Amino acid sequence: MKQITFWYDFASTYSYLAALRVEEVASQHGVEVTWQPFLLGPIFGAQGWTDSPFNIYEAKGKYMWRDMARLAESFRLPFKRPDTFPQNSLLAGRVACLGQSEGWVADFTRAAYAAQFGEGRSIATADDLVPLLTGLDLDAADILARATAPDGKMALRQSTDAAIAAGVFGAPSFTTADGELFWGSDRLEQVVAWAATHGG
Amino acid sequence: MKQITFWYDFASTYSYLAALRVEEVASQHGVEVTWQPFLLGPIFGAQGWTDSPFNIYEAKGKYMWRDMARLAESFRLPFKRPDTFPQNSLLAGRVACLGQSEGWVADFTRAAYAAQFGEGRSIATADDLVPLLTGLDLDAADILARATAPDGKMALRQSTDAAIAAGVFGAPSFTTADGELFWGSDRLEQVVAWAATHGG
Repeated sequence: MKQITFWYDFASTYSYLAALRVEEVASQHGVEVTWQPFLLGPIFGAQGWTDSPFNIYEAKGKYMWRDMARLAESFRLPFKRPDTFPQNSLLAGRVACLGQSEGWVADFTRAAYAAQFGEGRSIATADDLVPLLTGLDLDAADILARATAPDGKMALRQSTDAAIAAGVFGAPSFTTADGELFWGSDRLEQVVAWAATHGG
Repeated sequence: MKQITFWYDFASTYSYLAALRVEEVASQHGVEVTWQPFLLGPIFGAQGWTDSPFNIYEAKGKYMWRDMARLAESFRLPFKRPDTFPQNSLLAGRVACLGQSEGWVADFTRAAYAAQFGEGRSIATADDLVPLLTGLDLDAADILARATAPDGKMALRQSTDAAIAAGVFGAPSFTTADGELFWGSDRLEQVVAWAATHGG
């Protein structure tokens, strides 16, 4: 099976577009998707950034919000800018890591991005995530307890270490089995084509 | 006539890809291209950067060089990494500004990018630019003298001010008559489609 790994942080705007589209684009080319949540914070921190570059660099941020609105419209996805940006993505990332081994990571990820950037809702707290999990017929209390236990915390930390080792410096990113890295939601078609022709 | 403005700095790697492709993509959709050289240096400087972000951020730089090689291959464009990056683009930018009113800006721009990133040559000095200009049957000595006279210097400065006013924060960028900004060589098709459907 040809495969790509989709690296995302729940605080990332462009990852919303990728998360909502990746399965459709990949399946059209017979490519399987590994959903891999990680944290951008430590990577940005190592670059000296303590906030999103879209907040640090005003022109870049102004562009991003307009660009997101244009792109969402072109993909017929709803888009609503949340009051807070970036949101704290730590808990959502830990929860998603649990979903990797339990088969619901893709559904949870799409639900969390759709809530955040399709409806402008907060996804930062346990209270925010409960309705998303119960909406997937999952036991929210059990999942939140396990996600914040030591093993749950460790899973996201290890994923972030793996992202750094893979050369990831932004989100969304994609990697292939033969070691190629692609950065940005606008590279989705390119990475899928690469995996379809080079991977396996 | 539907129109886009193509903003580029001669030091920018991704602008090479855009410069070599923009006329072809635009003409397929009946869109006219205004070639607009500017300087990234003052814009990066205002963001606190005294070097290319591809040099400041190691993972980003490593990615960019691999990405450039992949993209050039996909477009069947030659690619050779120059020994020095970024190159001083001040003189090439001033020369290109002269070419705007004299009808040779596109040819000169393509020649300079092809020399720099197709052949890995220096384009930083007058000696580097002479063969490019004479290769276009232009009077190199006359052009270099006028490009470095006060009016020549002013033209590039004004263009950079106009770029900042248009919200440009990186290169290549594209703007449309109705005020949309697109950033990145990978947005070429998108901006042309926008101008073809919205502009005029």
